[in-house]
Amino acid sequence: MRKLRMGMVGGGIGSFMGDVHRKASGLDGMIELVCGAFNSTLEKTIESGKSLYLPKEKCYGSFQEMILEEKKLPEGERMDFVTIVTPNHLHFEPAKMALENGFHVVCDKPMTLTIQEAQILEKLAKESGLLFALTHNYTGNAMVKQARAMVTNGDLGEIRKVQVQYLQGWMAAEINKEAKIKPWRADPKKSGIGGSLADIGTHAENLVSYITNQEIVEIAADLGRIGKDRVLDNDGNLLLRMEGGAKGTMSISQVATGEENALIVKVYGSKGSIEWNQEESTKLIAKWIDKPQQAFTPDGIDIYDSVRATSRIPKGHPEGYLEAFGNIYRAFATHLMSVLENKPIEKPDYPSVSDGVRGVQFIYAAVKSDQENSAWTKLKQ
Amino acid sequence: MRKLRMGMVGGGIGSFMGDVHRKASGLDGMIELVCGAFNSTLEKTIESGKSLYLPKEKCYGSFQEMILEEKKLPEGERMDFVTIVTPNHLHFEPAKMALENGFHVVCDKPMTLTIQEAQILEKLAKESGLLFALTHNYTGNAMVKQARAMVTNGDLGEIRKVQVQYLQGWMAAEINKEAKIKPWRADPKKSGIGGSLADIGTHAENLVSYITNQEIVEIAADLGRIGKDRVLDNDGNLLLRMEGGAKGTMSISQVATGEENALIVKVYGSKGSIEWNQEESTKLIAKWIDKPQQAFTPDGIDIYDSVRATSRIPKGHPEGYLEAFGNIYRAFATHLMSVLENKPIEKPDYPSVSDGVRGVQFIYAAVKSDQENSAWTKLKQ
Amino acid sequence: MRKLRMGMVGGGIGSFMGDVHRKASGLDGMIELVCGAFNSTLEKTIESGKSLYLPKEKCYGSFQEMILEEKKLPEGERMDFVTIVTPNHLHFEPAKMALENGFHVVCDKPMTLTIQEAQILEKLAKESGLLFALTHNYTGNAMVKQARAMVTNGDLGEIRKVQVQYLQGWMAAEINKEAKIKPWRADPKKSGIGGSLADIGTHAENLVSYITNQEIVEIAADLGRIGKDRVLDNDGNLLLRMEGGAKGTMSISQVATGEENALIVKVYGSKGSIEWNQEESTKLIAKWIDKPQQAFTPDGIDIYDSVRATSRIPKGHPEGYLEAFGNIYRAFATHLMSVLENKPIEKPDYPSVSDGVRGVQFIYAAVKSDQENSAWTKLKQ
Amino acid sequence: MRKLRMGMVGGGIGSFMGDVHRKASGLDGMIELVCGAFNSTLEKTIESGKSLYLPKEKCYGSFQEMILEEKKLPEGERMDFVTIVTPNHLHFEPAKMALENGFHVVCDKPMTLTIQEAQILEKLAKESGLLFALTHNYTGNAMVKQARAMVTNGDLGEIRKVQVQYLQGWMAAEINKEAKIKPWRADPKKSGIGGSLADIGTHAENLVSYITNQEIVEIAADLGRIGKDRVLDNDGNLLLRMEGGAKGTMSISQVATGEENALIVKVYGSKGSIEWNQEESTKLIAKWIDKPQQAFTPDGIDIYDSVRATSRIPKGHPEGYLEAFGNIYRAFATHLMSVLENKPIEKPDYPSVSDGVRGVQFIYAAVKSDQENSAWTKLKQ
Repeated sequence: MRKLRMGMVGGGIGSFMGDVHRKASGLDGMIELVCGAFNSTLEKTIESGKSLYLPKEKCYGSFQEMILEEKKLPEGERMDFVTIVTPNHLHFEPAKMALENGFHVVCDKPMTLTIQEAQILEKLAKESGLLFALTHNYTGNAMVKQARAMVTNGDLGEIRKVQVQYLQGWMAAEINKEAKIKPWRADPKKSGIGGSLADIGTHAENLVSYITNQEIVEIAADLGRIGKDRVLDNDGNLLLRMEGGAKGTMSISQVATGEENALIVKVYGSKGSIEWNQEESTKLIAKWIDKPQQAFTPDGIDIYDSVRATSRIPKGHPEGYLEAFGNIYRAFATHLMSVLENKPIEKPDYPSVSDGVRGVQFIYAAVKSDQENSAWTKLKQ
Repeated sequence: MRKLRMGMVGGGIGSFMGDVHRKASGLDGMIELVCGAFNSTLEKTIESGKSLYLPKEKCYGSFQEMILEEKKLPEGERMDFVTIVTPNHLHFEPAKMALENGFHVVCDKPMTLTIQEAQILEKLAKESGLLFALTHNYTGNAMVKQARAMVTNGDLGEIRKVQVQYLQGWMAAEINKEAKIKPWRADPKKSGIGGSLADIGTHAENLVSYITNQEIVEIAADLGRIGKDRVLDNDGNLLLRMEGGAKGTMSISQVATGEENALIVKVYGSKGSIEWNQEESTKLIAKWIDKPQQAFTPDGIDIYDSVRATSRIPKGHPEGYLEAFGNIYRAFATHLMSVLENKPIEKPDYPSVSDGVRGVQFIYAAVKSDQENSAWTKLKQ
Repeated sequence: MRKLRMGMVGGGIGSFMGDVHRKASGLDGMIELVCGAFNSTLEKTIESGKSLYLPKEKCYGSFQEMILEEKKLPEGERMDFVTIVTPNHLHFEPAKMALENGFHVVCDKPMTLTIQEAQILEKLAKESGLLFALTHNYTGNAMVKQARAMVTNGDLGEIRKVQVQYLQGWMAAEINKEAKIKPWRADPKKSGIGGSLADIGTHAENLVSYITNQEIVEIAADLGRIGKDRVLDNDGNLLLRMEGGAKGTMSISQVATGEENALIVKVYGSKGSIEWNQEESTKLIAKWIDKPQQAFTPDGIDIYDSVRATSRIPKGHPEGYLEAFGNIYRAFATHLMSVLENKPIEKPDYPSVSDGVRGVQFIYAAVKSDQENSAWTKLKQ
Repeated sequence: MRKLRMGMVGGGIGSFMGDVHRKASGLDGMIELVCGAFNSTLEKTIESGKSLYLPKEKCYGSFQEMILEEKKLPEGERMDFVTIVTPNHLHFEPAKMALENGFHVVCDKPMTLTIQEAQILEKLAKESGLLFALTHNYTGNAMVKQARAMVTNGDLGEIRKVQVQYLQGWMAAEINKEAKIKPWRADPKKSGIGGSLADIGTHAENLVSYITNQEIVEIAADLGRIGKDRVLDNDGNLLLRMEGGAKGTMSISQVATGEENALIVKVYGSKGSIEWNQEESTKLIAKWIDKPQQAFTPDGIDIYDSVRATSRIPKGHPEGYLEAFGNIYRAFATHLMSVLENKPIEKPDYPSVSDGVRGVQFIYAAVKSDQENSAWTKLKQ
């Protein structure tokens, strides 16, 4: 099998997320960047391409041009898939056009601005049979996968309670300075109706679902909009009810002063419980009804085999954000290679277009609940 | 000044809480146990008294007898105050009778079964001028006091968000064994209408109020009753709205498998935030908008003077539950001595009868909110 | 059985250690302070006694007077034992006189200034049959006892390696200020030939021996004397060789800037290892050859019964320095009561006069090794 | 500037270190693998090359052939540098030949088997002006660089004490199973005279020197050889004396049961101290003489600018082993590019050939000291 060929939409020089996607996709030597529509103008895209050692002719003036031109090339020479790393409001169009033109897609989260858009992509992906990966990167962490494996293997028993928080503080500093928040983080037209809900809330939602292997059915939300003239939520407190009957809380914020990226999830079952803290991502705490507390590590003892394979280095050597992000790409690339070789694997382990739909539903349900004084609101309406 | 003389209601041999109150009250050599109505029969009380080196004649057959007999003695020979360590439904009567007969009171929490009873005690205490301490022991921790001092001194800026959890797992094991939970923990007649709400929820409520120096105004609650035939809540997920506008979440449980006594509070302000974990009680984490994260310790650097005085040993030597509990007694004893010497101090630092009222209001509001599908419910109705 | 009657030498008002001994000995209601020679003058001792609610006639002008006067009283009225909390150079004389006059002894560490003195006390104690407890308080911690139990029960297999550190930073601040260090901490005549060796090194030595249930046989020491005109060591780096063949390192310091009381011990065996950090004293980390890392807690799961009994409160509630110190007194009191009742228990669990001898031998061996450019030096010469 | 062209010696399929070097060198898109002599036979090398998408003609039968053939190509088409990832005894020859033929070198540690070999490489590198990087990867960690920056900027004051440990447990399991340890880890001919000294001791030595910006001058070592027929050390306890007068301890082991990769360093100065734990590599604890303990993070507050640039992702997102390793390659690549563009930067920040010499000196000094019953032994003899 050859390396997979990736075309990138967005992610020009200086874009943090573009850089992350490039490093993560390149980590395992399975994917190479072959073309891009990185910026809003051809000039800038060529400049970005140069810094990436891409030939000029592989730098396109727009994603439309890239999709149409690459489509003309024979398989193996054209890009295999498009990766979309633009701001939120620019996910839908390129994803839709890629799917309509036969290209597989990797897309940043939240998938789209509206539920309707999300469902269009879901329909397109399902009908075309094309692959679609959503980069909910935290589910790429080995210890998150261990937690999920422990739940699905019944180690924790019946799940009774969840607690999740995703707290950042960076916006507190900007509010204090009365600094302008980047428009795609403050303007509903560009970020959608959710602020912190979209940015980090969807990660929390996805993580809880992934680990417990069940959906959040309904939520009651009390949102905060802290700072002068703030339109979008930057703080949220939610009650959760899960598919299997468990209840829980979710606390999210981008004005939680002093927090860096405090994504912490706790899941309690009838036989045991787990706790994972993203900032100490290579440790999974398990507490048991009948034995002392344990700490699992990525390549440590009693790790499920499927999990161990997602760790790239021997025990005791920390892995982090890029490696987890790389796991999403690796799982996607492995799946895509298996498809290209006509031996598709059965249960690819990366977030799907349906996860993307659910994420947008979560945002809408939270906003609606908040408008109705925290009334319980179902994600699927 | 002489030692203060304490009479105890409840807390016979084998009672964990009786032992705690005796050790905590004795810690600073300011209080001596002089009499007791420890058990339900005189025989057992005498037996308890013997193990405590109490003369037989100071062991009373009932709290009524103890109060009436001690009242006959001259000041300095009779007990100065009554400490009440009985199960929840047996707090009100002895507290009321003690106040009516001129004795100061120390009482375990939750103060009473009903709001009405709580308000009667509040009225009696205020009108009589007698002292009343409620043993919300966690507020006795030096680092909790440091957190409060940091809030009241404005170090954290305006408080925006709170997060509190109080999770225990012991009942999960009992449920699995289908063991009988002690009646005063499962029977509304003995424990009141709240289960985990009363046992641990009131601690969480009190702790948040104490640290932020403001009340919880309204709550939205989703309670759980896990286990066969369970009547009272043993799990709860709540949204909080604070007096000053902050919002938050509370997660409580006695079926959080594997947790020991995981009381954790986080408070976020515009300039900084704090985090305190009861199980690592001698550390207060502070995170700042403009400096690296700090860890404060009881006798460490930059501790407020008022706080340092509540630590009994030099830096680096752990203090714990008994010392914190002892701080409630020490603050109460210091206040009482000042009153007896006619030089009352101004702001005694221990939980009051009004804290007790608020705790019961919290329980009732949570149960009501839960019955109304988590509708927002005010504590003061 | 009645309460045991304690007479105290040293520990007048304002003495930190006196206060600690009083609180620790009083914790379990088994011991009462009945007399004292607290200070260097009778006036001051009476003042100290007053604050402790002791009658004037029980305040003695000297330890000699106290021992002789109390001896005249009948058993049950006289003190049962003497507790010695004076500076290091004032341990030997009162301990010797107490033993010679039939009183049991509790003594602070290091036991004496010289090996010869230590051996005299050991001989006196053994010949008289009187009890002698040395307050190496850290061995009173429940998790230290769990570690020892795990070693003696073979859970860790054969012990291969130890690592111990005891680091404090308080003297660094004083050096920077060119402040005068208290004479009994800087003057060989008052503190003996060891500085940090005596203060904290002996704790480290005793802790390693206690947990591994074997002695340190020889050491190689490189000591530091940091600060102008410093005569005694305030820093030390040592190699250790244990009785059973294990090797290790010891790092001690009182000029380790920023450290509070960082006593940490790690013990590695062929099957598992343990780590205990005094500043997080209610947690014992165990790492295994064939299972994930575990964390034990005082009242938690899989704790040895003998250990659980040394914890006073239910799981998840921190205990600390005073409780550990109290365990030394409780074990001593339990032993003494059993002796007074003529049913002596077999293996009392508190540090003995022989531990005291070994501590002084450790100090002398370290100083000698350091003088000989870190040559290996046996503790027993 | 174009991408730098890397040729690899060793690191065929299945080689862990080869994989690490490829991922780390590829992380920043500055380096591409263009040829290799990966395995001991051409067939295997071609197979390895295929999995790396390398054309057959760029797979060489030996490092000699690779160096000679590549040398014939014009600059820009031939490899720019050789990276050596073979077992210890196969470092010297390819490194020497590469330098002699004008190729820059990246080499794994320990650099060579003997001091003489190391000095030959040092001489060759200095005389040729070719670049030489030794992959002491831990110094690539952002928090290690912050620690060094804090020392060199005087934040910690004068350095007084160091403590370093590097403990692994994997060999304990193999000993228990009486498993055969890989020959290059047990056979002096292949690993040199040091076992754990070479594998991990040199990392500890290098890390202490890097952070304190000074050399270890002399050591006293007590080595352990645990297990049947064990020839090489797998455990070591050392005293250290630093260039600037500081003293310290080093504890290393590969039989420290249960440890994964516990490399921990503590450095104490007159004004402050730092602690870094490789397993929690994105946190640097600083303790101060006059302020509360702080925790620094890679992209956090008050990080030196030079350090922040070595972190690839925003605060709160963990980085790990590969990113630190990548920093060595990035610093080397940046230096090499600056040289190729004739604008050499002044102080490249990666371990040099002289670090390699010192590492081998450290091994020899430790073995000698151990043979002389832990006599103090200078690194430079």
